Amino acid sequence: MKIYGDSLSGNCYKLKLACSILQIEHEWVHVDILAGETQNEDFRRKNPNGKVPMLELENGECLSESNAILNYLAAGSALLPTDPFQYARVLQWQFFEQYSHEPFIAVARFIARYLGLPEDRKAEYEAKQPGGHKALKVMETQLLESDYLVDNSFSIADIALYAYTHVANEGGFDLNSYPAILAWMERIVAQPGYCAME
Amino acid sequence: MKIYGDSLSGNCYKLKLACSILQIEHEWVHVDILAGETQNEDFRRKNPNGKVPMLELENGECLSESNAILNYLAAGSALLPTDPFQYARVLQWQFFEQYSHEPFIAVARFIARYLGLPEDRKAEYEAKQPGGHKALKVMETQLLESDYLVDNSFSIADIALYAYTHVANEGGFDLNSYPAILAWMERIVAQPGYCAME
Repeated sequence: MKIYGDSLSGNCYKLKLACSILQIEHEWVHVDILAGETQNEDFRRKNPNGKVPMLELENGECLSESNAILNYLAAGSALLPTDPFQYARVLQWQFFEQYSHEPFIAVARFIARYLGLPEDRKAEYEAKQPGGHKALKVMETQLLESDYLVDNSFSIADIALYAYTHVANEGGFDLNSYPAILAWMERIVAQPGYCAME
Repeated sequence: MKIYGDSLSGNCYKLKLACSILQIEHEWVHVDILAGETQNEDFRRKNPNGKVPMLELENGECLSESNAILNYLAAGSALLPTDPFQYARVLQWQFFEQYSHEPFIAVARFIARYLGLPEDRKAEYEAKQPGGHKALKVMETQLLESDYLVDNSFSIADIALYAYTHVANEGGFDLNSYPAILAWMERIVAQPGYCAME
Protein backbone atom coordinates (compact mmCIF):
# COMPACT_ATOMS: atom_id res chain seq x y z
CA MET A 1 0.00 0.00 0.00
CA LYS A 2 1.10 3.55 -0.70
CA ILE A 3 0.47 6.55 1.52
CA TYR A 4 0.74 9.95 -0.13
CA GLY A 5 1.61 12.64 2.38
CA ASP A 6 3.54 15.76 3.32
CA SER A 7 5.54 15.63 6.54
CA LEU A 8 4.54 19.25 7.34
CA SER A 9 0.93 18.11 7.78
CA GLY A 10 -0.40 16.81 11.08
CA ASN A 11 -3.14 15.03 9.15
CA CYS A 12 -0.44 13.01 7.37
CA TYR A 13 1.50 12.43 10.59
CA LYS A 14 -1.57 10.66 12.04
CA LEU A 15 -1.01 7.87 9.51
CA LYS A 16 2.75 7.77 9.97
CA LEU A 17 2.22 7.33 13.72
CA ALA A 18 -0.51 4.70 13.32
CA CYS A 19 1.59 2.68 10.84
CA SER A 20 4.58 2.86 13.17
CA ILE A 21 2.59 1.69 16.20
CA LEU A 22 0.71 -1.00 14.29
CA GLN A 23 3.83 -2.03 12.31
CA ILE A 24 2.07 -1.65 8.97
CA GLU A 25 4.40 -1.86 5.98
CA HIS A 26 3.80 0.83 3.40
CA GLU A 27 5.51 3.02 0.83
CA TRP A 28 5.46 6.72 1.74
CA VAL A 29 5.10 8.96 -1.32
CA HIS A 30 6.08 12.54 -0.57
CA VAL A 31 3.65 15.13 -1.92
CA ASP A 32 4.64 18.78 -1.52
CA ILE A 33 1.50 20.75 -0.60
CA LEU A 34 3.14 24.18 -0.74
CA ALA A 35 4.47 23.38 -4.25
CA GLY A 36 0.88 22.64 -5.37
CA GLU A 37 1.39 18.92 -5.90
CA THR A 38 -2.06 18.06 -4.47
CA GLN A 39 -3.70 20.20 -7.13
CA ASN A 40 -2.24 18.71 -10.32
CA GLU A 41 -4.34 16.62 -12.66
CA ASP A 42 -2.66 13.32 -11.86
CA PHE A 43 -3.26 13.67 -8.14
CA ARG A 44 -6.82 14.94 -8.52
CA ARG A 45 -7.70 11.90 -10.60
CA LYS A 46 -6.94 9.86 -7.49
CA ASN A 47 -8.52 12.32 -5.05
CA PRO A 48 -10.89 14.87 -6.66
CA ASN A 49 -10.83 16.84 -3.39
CA GLY A 50 -7.08 17.48 -3.91
CA LYS A 51 -5.88 16.74 -0.39
CA VAL A 52 -3.35 14.57 1.42
CA PRO A 53 -3.11 12.18 3.10
CA MET A 54 -4.34 9.59 0.63
CA LEU A 55 -4.05 5.81 0.72
CA GLU A 56 -3.67 3.76 -2.46
CA LEU A 57 -4.14 0.01 -2.38
CA GLU A 58 -2.28 -2.42 -4.66
CA ASN A 59 -5.40 -2.67 -6.85
CA GLY A 60 -5.36 1.09 -7.41
CA GLU A 61 -8.33 1.92 -5.17
CA CYS A 62 -7.83 5.15 -3.26
CA LEU A 63 -9.10 6.41 0.08
CA SER A 64 -8.80 9.94 1.41
CA GLU A 65 -9.51 11.77 4.70
CA SER A 66 -6.95 11.10 7.43
CA ASN A 67 -9.51 9.87 9.95
CA ALA A 68 -11.20 7.48 7.51
CA ILE A 69 -7.77 6.04 6.65
CA LEU A 70 -6.95 5.70 10.38
CA ASN A 71 -10.10 3.60 10.82
CA TYR A 72 -9.13 1.40 7.86
CA LEU A 73 -5.58 0.87 9.14
CA ALA A 74 -6.70 0.14 12.70
CA ALA A 75 -9.63 -2.16 11.87
CA GLY A 76 -9.42 -5.29 14.02
CA SER A 77 -6.52 -3.94 16.12
CA ALA A 78 -6.30 -2.95 19.77
CA LEU A 79 -6.51 0.70 18.70
CA LEU A 80 -10.26 0.36 18.08
CA PRO A 81 -12.82 -0.76 20.68
CA THR A 82 -15.18 -3.56 19.68
CA ASP A 83 -18.13 -2.30 21.75
CA PRO A 84 -20.38 -0.31 19.34
CA PHE A 85 -20.93 2.60 21.72
CA GLN A 86 -17.23 2.92 22.59
CA TYR A 87 -16.40 2.68 18.91
CA ALA A 88 -18.85 5.52 18.20
CA ARG A 89 -17.07 7.56 20.87
CA VAL A 90 -13.79 7.14 18.98
CA LEU A 91 -15.57 8.52 15.91
CA GLN A 92 -17.05 11.35 18.01
CA TRP A 93 -13.53 12.53 18.90
CA GLN A 94 -12.38 12.21 15.30
CA PHE A 95 -15.26 14.34 14.01
CA PHE A 96 -14.64 16.79 16.84
CA GLU A 97 -11.02 16.97 15.68
CA GLN A 98 -11.93 17.84 12.11
CA TYR A 99 -14.65 20.37 12.92
CA SER A 100 -13.79 21.96 16.27
CA HIS A 101 -10.01 21.49 16.66
CA GLU A 102 -8.10 21.34 13.35
CA PRO A 103 -9.72 24.43 11.71
CA PHE A 104 -8.45 26.54 14.64
CA ILE A 105 -5.23 24.96 15.90
CA ALA A 106 -3.81 23.59 12.65
CA VAL A 107 -4.73 26.70 10.67
CA ALA A 108 -3.20 29.06 13.28
CA ARG A 109 -0.04 26.92 13.21
CA PHE A 110 0.05 26.98 9.41
CA ILE A 111 -0.24 30.78 9.33
CA ALA A 112 2.44 31.23 12.00
CA ARG A 113 4.93 28.50 11.15
CA TYR A 114 4.68 28.10 7.39
CA LEU A 115 3.59 31.54 6.27
CA GLY A 116 5.60 33.42 8.93
CA LEU A 117 2.55 35.25 10.33
CA PRO A 118 2.26 37.85 7.56
CA GLU A 119 0.47 41.14 8.31
CA ASP A 120 -2.57 40.31 6.13
CA ARG A 121 -3.26 37.01 7.98
CA LYS A 122 -2.81 38.38 11.54
CA ALA A 123 -6.53 39.07 12.10
CA GLU A 124 -7.37 35.53 10.99
CA TYR A 125 -4.62 34.11 13.24
CA GLU A 126 -6.00 36.02 16.22
CA ALA A 127 -9.55 34.93 15.39
CA LYS A 128 -8.44 31.28 15.59
CA GLN A 129 -7.26 31.55 19.20
CA PRO A 130 -10.60 31.39 21.12
CA GLY A 131 -11.84 28.39 19.09
CA GLY A 132 -8.54 26.58 19.63
CA HIS A 133 -8.68 27.14 23.38
CA LYS A 134 -12.30 26.01 23.46
CA ALA A 135 -11.26 22.72 21.81
CA LEU A 136 -8.36 22.26 24.22
CA LYS A 137 -10.73 22.83 27.17
CA VAL A 138 -13.08 20.12 25.86
CA MET A 139 -10.12 17.71 25.68
CA GLU A 140 -8.86 18.76 29.13
CA THR A 141 -12.32 18.10 30.64
CA GLN A 142 -12.25 14.54 29.29
CA LEU A 143 -8.61 13.87 30.18
CA LEU A 144 -9.20 14.88 33.80
CA GLU A 145 -11.58 11.90 33.91
CA SER A 146 -9.78 9.25 31.88
CA ASP A 147 -6.22 8.43 30.79
CA TYR A 148 -7.16 8.49 27.12
CA LEU A 149 -9.98 10.15 25.20
CA VAL A 150 -12.13 7.02 25.16
CA ASP A 151 -11.94 5.40 28.58
CA ASN A 152 -8.52 4.26 29.65
CA SER A 153 -7.59 2.64 26.34
CA PHE A 154 -5.24 4.17 23.80
CA SER A 155 -7.10 4.38 20.47
CA ILE A 156 -6.96 6.13 17.10
CA ALA A 157 -8.99 8.93 18.74
CA ASP A 158 -5.81 9.76 20.67
CA ILE A 159 -3.66 9.57 17.53
CA ALA A 160 -6.10 11.85 15.69
CA LEU A 161 -6.07 14.50 18.42
CA TYR A 162 -2.38 14.18 19.28
CA ALA A 163 -1.25 15.14 15.78
CA TYR A 164 -2.02 18.86 15.99
CA THR A 165 -2.30 19.16 19.79
CA HIS A 166 1.36 18.34 20.42
CA VAL A 167 2.44 21.16 18.08
CA ALA A 168 -0.30 23.60 19.18
CA ASN A 169 2.40 25.85 20.68
CA GLU A 170 3.51 26.57 17.09
CA GLY A 171 0.06 28.10 16.57
CA GLY A 172 0.35 30.25 19.69
CA PHE A 173 -1.43 27.93 22.15
CA ASP A 174 0.35 27.57 25.49
CA LEU A 175 -0.36 24.03 26.71
CA ASN A 176 0.91 24.73 30.21
CA SER A 177 -2.65 25.69 31.19
CA TYR A 178 -3.75 22.15 30.32
CA PRO A 179 -2.01 19.74 32.71
CA ALA A 180 -4.21 16.76 31.81
CA ILE A 181 -3.34 17.23 28.14
CA LEU A 182 0.38 17.40 28.99
CA ALA A 183 0.16 14.14 30.97
CA TRP A 184 -1.81 12.47 28.16
CA MET A 185 0.84 13.49 25.61
CA GLU A 186 3.51 11.84 27.76
CA ARG A 187 1.47 8.62 27.79
CA ILE A 188 1.32 8.72 23.99
CA VAL A 189 5.06 9.31 23.60
CA ALA A 190 5.59 6.22 25.79
CA GLN A 191 3.58 3.96 23.43
CA PRO A 192 5.64 1.16 21.86
CA GLY A 193 6.35 2.11 18.25
CA TYR A 194 5.85 5.86 18.81
CA CYS A 195 7.56 8.05 16.23
CA ALA A 196 8.02 11.82 16.25
CA MET A 197 6.53 14.15 13.64
CA GLU A 198 9.93 15.24 12.19
CA MET B 1 -32.99 6.73 23.77
CA LYS B 2 -33.27 10.48 23.53
CA ILE B 3 -32.04 12.62 20.66
CA TYR B 4 -31.50 16.30 21.43
CA GLY B 5 -31.84 18.42 18.32
CA ASP B 6 -33.05 21.56 16.60
CA SER B 7 -35.12 21.10 13.45
CA LEU B 8 -33.37 24.09 11.82
CA SER B 9 -30.12 22.12 11.78
CA GLY B 10 -29.19 19.80 8.94
CA ASN B 11 -26.86 17.98 11.32
CA CYS B 12 -29.89 17.09 13.45
CA TYR B 13 -32.00 16.20 10.42
CA LYS B 14 -29.44 13.49 9.52
CA LEU B 15 -30.53 11.59 12.64
CA LYS B 16 -34.23 12.22 12.13
CA LEU B 17 -33.92 10.79 8.61
CA ALA B 18 -31.82 7.79 9.71
CA CYS B 19 -34.25 6.94 12.54
CA SER B 20 -37.19 7.22 10.16
CA ILE B 21 -35.60 4.94 7.55
CA LEU B 22 -34.30 2.43 10.12
CA GLN B 23 -37.51 2.65 12.20
CA ILE B 24 -35.62 3.41 15.40
CA GLU B 25 -37.85 4.47 18.27
CA HIS B 26 -36.60 7.50 20.15
CA GLU B 27 -37.71 10.58 22.06
CA TRP B 28 -36.88 13.85 20.27
CA VAL B 29 -35.94 16.63 22.70
CA HIS B 30 -36.13 20.04 21.08
CA VAL B 31 -33.14 22.28 21.84
CA ASP B 32 -33.33 25.85 20.54
CA ILE B 33 -29.85 26.79 19.23
CA LEU B 34 -30.67 30.42 18.49
CA ALA B 35 -32.06 30.83 22.04
CA GLY B 36 -28.70 29.60 23.41
CA GLU B 37 -30.00 26.32 24.82
CA THR B 38 -26.88 24.40 23.74
CA GLN B 39 -24.72 26.72 25.85
CA ASN B 40 -26.40 26.42 29.25
CA GLU B 41 -24.75 24.52 32.09
CA ASP B 42 -27.14 21.59 32.06
CA PHE B 43 -26.57 20.89 28.40
CA ARG B 44 -22.80 21.39 28.55
CA ARG B 45 -22.56 18.83 31.34
CA LYS B 46 -23.85 16.31 28.79
CA ASN B 47 -21.82 17.71 25.87
CA PRO B 48 -18.91 19.97 26.88
CA ASN B 49 -18.62 21.06 23.23
CA GLY B 50 -22.12 22.62 23.48
CA LYS B 51 -23.55 21.33 20.22
CA VAL B 52 -26.54 19.40 18.92
CA PRO B 53 -27.35 16.77 17.87
CA MET B 54 -26.66 14.66 20.92
CA LEU B 55 -27.77 11.14 21.74
CA GLU B 56 -28.52 10.06 25.32
CA LEU B 57 -28.88 6.38 26.17
CA GLU B 58 -31.17 5.05 28.90
CA ASN B 59 -28.13 4.66 31.18
CA GLY B 60 -27.32 8.36 30.82
CA GLU B 61 -24.31 7.94 28.53
CA CYS B 62 -24.13 10.65 25.87
CA LEU B 63 -22.71 10.74 22.37
CA SER B 64 -22.25 13.82 20.20
CA GLU B 65 -21.25 14.58 16.59
CA SER B 66 -23.96 13.86 14.03
CA ASN B 67 -21.80 11.51 11.97
CA ALA B 68 -20.63 9.47 14.96
CA ILE B 69 -24.25 9.07 16.05
CA LEU B 70 -25.23 8.04 12.51
CA ASN B 71 -22.64 5.25 12.67
CA TYR B 72 -23.98 4.10 16.04
CA LEU B 73 -27.59 4.08 14.83
CA ALA B 74 -26.77 2.26 11.59
CA ALA B 75 -24.39 -0.36 13.04
CA GLY B 76 -25.36 -3.78 11.70
CA SER B 77 -27.94 -2.38 9.26
CA ALA B 78 -28.03 -2.27 5.46
CA LEU B 79 -26.99 1.39 5.63
CA LEU B 80 -23.39 0.40 6.42
CA PRO B 81 -21.21 -1.85 4.25
CA THR B 82 -19.50 -4.79 5.95
CA ASP B 83 -16.40 -4.75 3.73
CA PRO B 84 -13.71 -2.77 5.64
CA PHE B 85 -12.60 -0.72 2.64
CA GLN B 86 -16.15 0.17 1.61
CA TYR B 87 -16.92 1.02 5.23
CA ALA B 88 -13.89 3.34 5.28
CA ARG B 89 -15.24 5.01 2.15
CA VAL B 90 -18.48 5.81 4.00
CA LEU B 91 -16.36 7.46 6.69
CA GLN B 92 -14.35 9.29 4.00
CA TRP B 93 -17.54 10.95 2.76
CA GLN B 94 -18.63 11.79 6.30
CA PHE B 95 -15.32 13.47 7.11
CA PHE B 96 -15.47 15.24 3.74
CA GLU B 97 -18.92 16.50 4.72
CA GLN B 98 -17.74 17.98 8.01
CA TYR B 99 -14.56 19.57 6.68
CA SER B 100 -15.15 20.45 3.02
CA HIS B 101 -18.94 20.74 2.65
CA GLU B 102 -20.75 21.82 5.84
CA PRO B 103 -18.46 24.79 6.72
CA PHE B 104 -19.30 26.34 3.35
CA ILE B 105 -22.82 25.26 2.41
CA ALA B 106 -24.42 25.07 5.86
CA VAL B 107 -22.79 28.29 7.04
CA ALA B 108 -23.83 30.22 3.90
CA ARG B 109 -27.37 28.91 4.40
CA PHE B 110 -27.35 29.92 8.07
CA ILE B 111 -26.22 33.46 7.22
CA ALA B 112 -28.81 33.83 4.45
CA ARG B 113 -31.81 32.01 5.87
CA TYR B 114 -31.56 32.50 9.62
CA LEU B 115 -29.69 35.78 9.89
CA GLY B 116 -31.32 37.34 6.80
CA LEU B 117 -27.97 38.06 5.08
CA PRO B 118 -27.03 41.13 7.13
CA GLU B 119 -24.58 43.65 5.66
CA ASP B 120 -21.76 42.72 8.07
CA ARG B 121 -21.86 39.01 7.10
CA LYS B 122 -22.10 39.53 3.31
CA ALA B 123 -18.34 39.23 2.68
CA GLU B 124 -18.27 35.97 4.66
CA TYR B 125 -21.32 34.70 2.75
CA GLU B 126 -19.64 35.47 -0.58
CA ALA B 127 -16.39 33.86 0.59
CA LYS B 128 -18.29 30.61 1.26
CA GLN B 129 -19.48 30.24 -2.33
CA PRO B 130 -16.32 28.87 -4.07
CA GLY B 131 -15.71 26.27 -1.34
CA GLY B 132 -19.34 25.15 -1.52
CA HIS B 133 -19.19 24.73 -5.28
CA LYS B 134 -15.90 22.84 -4.97
CA ALA B 135 -17.60 20.38 -2.60
CA LEU B 136 -20.60 20.01 -4.92
CA LYS B 137 -18.24 19.29 -7.84
CA VAL B 138 -16.50 16.53 -5.85
CA MET B 139 -19.93 14.96 -5.18
CA GLU B 140 -21.02 15.39 -8.81
CA THR B 141 -17.83 13.64 -10.03
CA GLN B 142 -18.63 10.61 -7.85
CA LEU B 143 -22.36 10.56 -8.65
CA LEU B 144 -21.66 10.52 -12.39
CA GLU B 145 -19.98 7.15 -11.70
CA SER B 146 -22.29 5.53 -9.15
CA ASP B 147 -25.91 5.82 -7.99
CA TYR B 148 -24.88 6.55 -4.42
CA LEU B 149 -21.71 7.96 -2.88
CA VAL B 150 -20.31 4.54 -2.02
CA ASP B 151 -20.93 2.23 -4.96
CA ASN B 152 -24.54 1.64 -5.80
CA SER B 153 -25.74 1.12 -2.24
CA PHE B 154 -27.61 3.70 -0.21
CA SER B 155 -25.66 4.30 3.02
CA ILE B 156 -25.32 6.79 5.86
CA ALA B 157 -22.77 8.60 3.66
CA ASP B 158 -25.74 9.62 1.49
CA ILE B 159 -27.78 10.67 4.52
CA ALA B 160 -24.85 12.74 5.83
CA LEU B 161 -24.39 14.58 2.53
CA TYR B 162 -28.07 14.89 1.67
CA ALA B 163 -28.87 16.90 4.81
CA TYR B 164 -27.30 20.19 3.72
CA THR B 165 -27.06 19.48 -0.03
CA HIS B 166 -30.84 19.36 -0.54
CA VAL B 167 -31.20 22.83 1.02
CA ALA B 168 -28.03 24.26 -0.57
CA ASN B 169 -30.20 26.61 -2.64
CA GLU B 170 -31.02 28.42 0.63
CA GLY B 171 -27.31 29.24 0.85
CA GLY B 172 -27.21 30.58 -2.71
CA PHE B 173 -26.05 27.38 -4.47
CA ASP B 174 -27.95 26.63 -7.67
CA LEU B 175 -28.06 22.82 -7.98
CA ASN B 176 -29.25 22.92 -11.58
CA SER B 177 -25.60 22.79 -12.67
CA TYR B 178 -25.29 19.43 -10.93
CA PRO B 179 -27.59 16.95 -12.70
CA ALA B 180 -26.07 13.87 -11.06
CA ILE B 181 -26.71 15.39 -7.62
CA LEU B 182 -30.32 16.18 -8.60
CA ALA B 183 -30.90 12.57 -9.72
CA TRP B 184 -29.25 11.24 -6.52
CA MET B 185 -31.54 13.42 -4.38
CA GLU B 186 -34.57 11.93 -6.14
CA ARG B 187 -33.30 8.44 -5.33
CA ILE B 188 -33.02 9.40 -1.67
CA VAL B 189 -36.53 10.89 -1.54
CA ALA B 190 -37.79 7.55 -2.92
CA GLN B 191 -36.25 5.54 -0.03
CA PRO B 192 -38.85 3.73 2.11
CA GLY B 193 -39.22 5.67 5.37
CA TYR B 194 -37.92 8.95 3.92
CA CYS B 195 -39.03 12.02 5.85
CA ALA B 196 -38.66 15.68 4.90
CA MET B 197 -36.61 18.18 6.91
CA GLU B 198 -39.66 20.28 7.95
